[in-house]
Amino acid sequence: MTSALWDPIFGRSHVTPSTDDQAWLAALCAVEAALARACADVGLIEPAVARRVADVCTAQAGTDPTALGAAAQADGNPVRPLVQELRAAVRPDDTWAVHFGATSQDVLDTAAMLVARDALAVIASALQSAADSCARLAAEHRDTAMVARTLLQQAVPTTFGTLAAGWGEGLDRAGQKLDAVQLAVQLGGGAGTLAGWYPHGPAVRSAFAAELGLTDPGTSWHTERGRIADLACALGVACGAVAKVSTDIVLLAQTEVGEVREGAGGESSTMAHKHNPIAAVTARAAAAQAPGLVATVLAAMPAELQRGAGPWHAEWPALTALLNTTGGAARRLADSLTDLQVDADAMVRNLRTLTGLAEPDLGHAGDIVDHFLKGRA
Amino acid sequence: MTSALWDPIFGRSHVTPSTDDQAWLAALCAVEAALARACADVGLIEPAVARRVADVCTAQAGTDPTALGAAAQADGNPVRPLVQELRAAVRPDDTWAVHFGATSQDVLDTAAMLVARDALAVIASALQSAADSCARLAAEHRDTAMVARTLLQQAVPTTFGTLAAGWGEGLDRAGQKLDAVQLAVQLGGGAGTLAGWYPHGPAVRSAFAAELGLTDPGTSWHTERGRIADLACALGVACGAVAKVSTDIVLLAQTEVGEVREGAGGESSTMAHKHNPIAAVTARAAAAQAPGLVATVLAAMPAELQRGAGPWHAEWPALTALLNTTGGAARRLADSLTDLQVDADAMVRNLRTLTGLAEPDLGHAGDIVDHFLKGRA
Amino acid sequence: MTSALWDPIFGRSHVTPSTDDQAWLAALCAVEAALARACADVGLIEPAVARRVADVCTAQAGTDPTALGAAAQADGNPVRPLVQELRAAVRPDDTWAVHFGATSQDVLDTAAMLVARDALAVIASALQSAADSCARLAAEHRDTAMVARTLLQQAVPTTFGTLAAGWGEGLDRAGQKLDAVQLAVQLGGGAGTLAGWYPHGPAVRSAFAAELGLTDPGTSWHTERGRIADLACALGVACGAVAKVSTDIVLLAQTEVGEVREGAGGESSTMAHKHNPIAAVTARAAAAQAPGLVATVLAAMPAELQRGAGPWHAEWPALTALLNTTGGAARRLADSLTDLQVDADAMVRNLRTLTGLAEPDLGHAGDIVDHFLKGRA
Amino acid sequence: MTSALWDPIFGRSHVTPSTDDQAWLAALCAVEAALARACADVGLIEPAVARRVADVCTAQAGTDPTALGAAAQADGNPVRPLVQELRAAVRPDDTWAVHFGATSQDVLDTAAMLVARDALAVIASALQSAADSCARLAAEHRDTAMVARTLLQQAVPTTFGTLAAGWGEGLDRAGQKLDAVQLAVQLGGGAGTLAGWYPHGPAVRSAFAAELGLTDPGTSWHTERGRIADLACALGVACGAVAKVSTDIVLLAQTEVGEVREGAGGESSTMAHKHNPIAAVTARAAAAQAPGLVATVLAAMPAELQRGAGPWHAEWPALTALLNTTGGAARRLADSLTDLQVDADAMVRNLRTLTGLAEPDLGHAGDIVDHFLKGRA
Repeated sequence: MTSALWDPIFGRSHVTPSTDDQAWLAALCAVEAALARACADVGLIEPAVARRVADVCTAQAGTDPTALGAAAQADGNPVRPLVQELRAAVRPDDTWAVHFGATSQDVLDTAAMLVARDALAVIASALQSAADSCARLAAEHRDTAMVARTLLQQAVPTTFGTLAAGWGEGLDRAGQKLDAVQLAVQLGGGAGTLAGWYPHGPAVRSAFAAELGLTDPGTSWHTERGRIADLACALGVACGAVAKVSTDIVLLAQTEVGEVREGAGGESSTMAHKHNPIAAVTARAAAAQAPGLVATVLAAMPAELQRGAGPWHAEWPALTALLNTTGGAARRLADSLTDLQVDADAMVRNLRTLTGLAEPDLGHAGDIVDHFLKGRA
Repeated sequence: MTSALWDPIFGRSHVTPSTDDQAWLAALCAVEAALARACADVGLIEPAVARRVADVCTAQAGTDPTALGAAAQADGNPVRPLVQELRAAVRPDDTWAVHFGATSQDVLDTAAMLVARDALAVIASALQSAADSCARLAAEHRDTAMVARTLLQQAVPTTFGTLAAGWGEGLDRAGQKLDAVQLAVQLGGGAGTLAGWYPHGPAVRSAFAAELGLTDPGTSWHTERGRIADLACALGVACGAVAKVSTDIVLLAQTEVGEVREGAGGESSTMAHKHNPIAAVTARAAAAQAPGLVATVLAAMPAELQRGAGPWHAEWPALTALLNTTGGAARRLADSLTDLQVDADAMVRNLRTLTGLAEPDLGHAGDIVDHFLKGRA
Repeated sequence: MTSALWDPIFGRSHVTPSTDDQAWLAALCAVEAALARACADVGLIEPAVARRVADVCTAQAGTDPTALGAAAQADGNPVRPLVQELRAAVRPDDTWAVHFGATSQDVLDTAAMLVARDALAVIASALQSAADSCARLAAEHRDTAMVARTLLQQAVPTTFGTLAAGWGEGLDRAGQKLDAVQLAVQLGGGAGTLAGWYPHGPAVRSAFAAELGLTDPGTSWHTERGRIADLACALGVACGAVAKVSTDIVLLAQTEVGEVREGAGGESSTMAHKHNPIAAVTARAAAAQAPGLVATVLAAMPAELQRGAGPWHAEWPALTALLNTTGGAARRLADSLTDLQVDADAMVRNLRTLTGLAEPDLGHAGDIVDHFLKGRA
Repeated sequence: MTSALWDPIFGRSHVTPSTDDQAWLAALCAVEAALARACADVGLIEPAVARRVADVCTAQAGTDPTALGAAAQADGNPVRPLVQELRAAVRPDDTWAVHFGATSQDVLDTAAMLVARDALAVIASALQSAADSCARLAAEHRDTAMVARTLLQQAVPTTFGTLAAGWGEGLDRAGQKLDAVQLAVQLGGGAGTLAGWYPHGPAVRSAFAAELGLTDPGTSWHTERGRIADLACALGVACGAVAKVSTDIVLLAQTEVGEVREGAGGESSTMAHKHNPIAAVTARAAAAQAPGLVATVLAAMPAELQRGAGPWHAEWPALTALLNTTGGAARRLADSLTDLQVDADAMVRNLRTLTGLAEPDLGHAGDIVDHFLKGRA
């Protein structure tokens, strides 16, 4: 789900290499390789066979996913045709060792966690960059007085540092929530009973998790989709944090307010004098995709009995879109903040329409900034 | 937003050529060409100049959209860089006639209607094919008694014809709703006042609509997004109609019910005896994307003042995804229905667990089928 | 689902009498009465019996719904206990004529249409009132120049009349969409085959519709929920139109912009100088409930086989909330617009920061207003 | 937002006393009382005055919220009229000590946390009860073989104990997530700078939190809505866990499957032989409200600058509905599970259509049950 035309606009170009067809294929192959190695760890497959299978899986990761996609339609997922390709590629007497004991969902769910892990690293980096900019702005403008606006009406004094600290707190919290999402392998076989590896099931799952650097969940979650929902929610909350900041930037950049300005604003096709806060605008648009996508993932939680007959499949496009749009939103916000120009004079001017020349009462504004900066130090 | 790996699974491969980067570029170019011709129609541009501009636009449609996407990031949409490319490609003294009087949103909104029109044709055809299959099944099984299930409990007798007629009615209604969506040009200039074509504004808009075979809306809808929301809703309702039928197929195909079976069911990677109703399952999954996407489009309706600062941009990925997933859902359902195998013996057997050997009371079941078939004749 | 504390804030107090427990009970009773009379029309029940049954139904409408709610839990809907109460209240030898041939869903779905009809009348009136205010503002300010803001940046000149006309067009379109929603009876019996009234099924349905002033759908829609989804979508689009206008009011009322002001703005608990556009703010909040509720209704479309085992029930709270919040949003917007104060001097002042003293180029702004006003005349 | 007619059906009657008008009024009053006491703790108000103010607040909690609701419309929230009532009720020279230093949002946000805390206790108890039933079923049926169904097709053997353990794990995880949601006071004054309590701001906030038994967040979150979003998401995930289990119950209770049966199933108004799993059906319906409501809360995260002009207000109905529907869903599921009748013979019978008389391979099914039970011990 990549687009050369739209991905740059929505900041997705940084994330899509982690979620595109090639990334999914690589993840599926990595899972099959790890499974072979995990089976070897407990003695179900000889080490040499597992190594040969794993090597074939690794090689397969670089192939063209187009044929796989076409073949996948009949099964509703790409795992069976991939396994067929892998079995055709290994030595004839190694075929039994490919996809040993597993069901398609084991491979796809675990691959999804690998895809998510790589995408989350990109997202976290963009969120971090945006939050770092907030910290820089908060420090620089710790004492820059501005007028607080409640219901978009001028209210009482505050500082831009306080506002920027609040932005950063939201972004940092969102990043911590994403960090805390546990990415676990799924391994259970057709019914989730680990029957194919008996009596080594839990040991294989544990080795499988270790091979991939994912968590061993201690159970099968093939139709207990709380983990997927947690991930989707954390992405949705991150988009909300991004939307908050980018909305504020767009509002402060209004011609009549004029308190901030994007260093690299967009030009209009007809109006040369305009200075559009394009990065913030597109960050808002990317973030606005999230609530609906989170709803889709939540609505897919009731996977029927031992494998969802639609709900499971419904997660893939929604989750992929959510990873992409969150990464894009965070990236565009980071772009906006990187060289955001703050007009402290305009802030004073706007504040004086409210307070006149009186010294503004800033309360604990400075303490709030200090608290935020200390918390990240 | 295409994927060689996932599009076939979700049935999107048929639609994505209407919504992919190349299709968008072609639509944008077609709009710029039509604008030049429309200006010529009212005498604002000489015919020869307009022809030359239109020719360049047409040629541009086939270029690679990658560079355009990269250049578009700074503006938040691809129109200004496209206009730059077009101006560089026309004769130097024709540059004034490119994008005459228009703003980016005019071009993008109108191009979106062209993209939607092409995608809707594909969607309509798939819905029609699915509804035709329902009509065939209803006719064939007009008198095939089965047990009605309410709250998934066996209840009283009905016929499979009645059920299939109900499926077809929902699909036909959804298709009619999609047909009724009015696709109108947007043309207004920077503020929606048609200032750039004064005093010929309404005439240019009318000619522009005629050139493109779209409706002349009689007004500017740059920030009155009801038309986009209507389109999104009609797509959402179509997905609901598809989800209803595919859910029923999955339920009737259950091993314990066994009343229908997909002709080309999917195989399991581990369980050879299974016969999965994969087309219906993936139709459900594709349709399940819609409610969240519709919510995204509805939530984007409040475009600020004379151009949405985020809400406008938020429509593009959601609307594109909605077109793709609706087309995919309809396609997969059509696939499922095309050679759906109905086991009338199983229907009788299941019915008899309820009624024994008594003649089932079928009420107006036959009349309902006849009414449906007559309505489509 | 009423609240003495919150309904006034969100403008719902006008609508909730049409959707509250008593209104639902009245609607359920009206449906049972109409069914008896419809059966009498075709000779299935003697006129005198039908009259007596209908009288009992009418009397029942005024009773306390509390006991009914408690009794309804065991069945998942209030129809069976209501029928029991009605049967206990009629003459012993009239009991057979109560709920003749019908299933619970027939009664509940049709009652929902009555509830919706009454609520829609309130909603339409509020939308109309808001649109009328837009027309008045558009006429008064046909030539009041203001600056158009795109991406919230000052762009080029327009008029406030043009903006108000656009608001009115959106509200009028939304009102027309709501008017166009067809409210049809549902009557089909346990399986939708009209078996209970055979061979008079279609005639009973037709008479039933005539009794209630609803549409005869010509079929059973017990699990073809497109009609409910259409209604939900029309409500969602209406909320979007309201949100657009109220967002613009909030933006124009910003202290720094100062171009409009609510006649009766809210006061702050701490800041006496503020003049909050509370009606517009709460209209936005009420309208913001809609996208998620529409998604809920769309996601409930796949009702299983002959009666949804959850999806059907899921419609009731979502649809009721949607009716209430749409009516509330429209009401609060109408409140905001009724005595919206427009500061034409501020508009000129803000425009001049852009254009200086040059005469603004207003293009077809006046024509746009005239077109809108003529269209409503 | 209570309904005597509908609340029992959706299981909400247990929760609504925690979220209804009276509960909100009590919470608002408790917050004002705690604020006075907190100010006394740091010496801003004399203890005797604070005590008198707190006593008046406590008395006010029991009054009728109707007049408050009517008065609240003008301000868009009930805090200012409540403060007026409180000031009218205290001794004239105590009025300054009412609502000392606070803004409406401080009181409303903190009251929302109290409402949420009470509702969460009810929800947690219902989830716990449902999970306990799962544990009992898992223990009882540790070795009851049944057929696993993937994509609703019979697949391979498993046990009912394994299924029930998976249900319980999902419910327990959801409960833990809800427990982990941090409910923090909001206290910041008009701009979030704690100016009204300077230099004691942080100390007042800390005392305020201690008075109410809520967390001191260390900052102002008036427009950093991540905490509200986290709460909404945890409720949404809980609904998903409930929906999973109730969907499975409905599927296993199908006439053709017949493996479980609700002890107290609903009766049909026309079909006496049916045994509807009404508690599970209405649990599904209640849970199905959640994804849309979560989307509404997420979409409201971008609260503008120092107080949301609509987004803030939009949280209240969505969050209240979410608390109610989650509690109702959990309650109805607990009802369903409490006396769920498991037909082990039917499970064996259905399994044998797949495996014949061969001993089913149950893999680690027993270990999975043991792991689950040990984890809760």
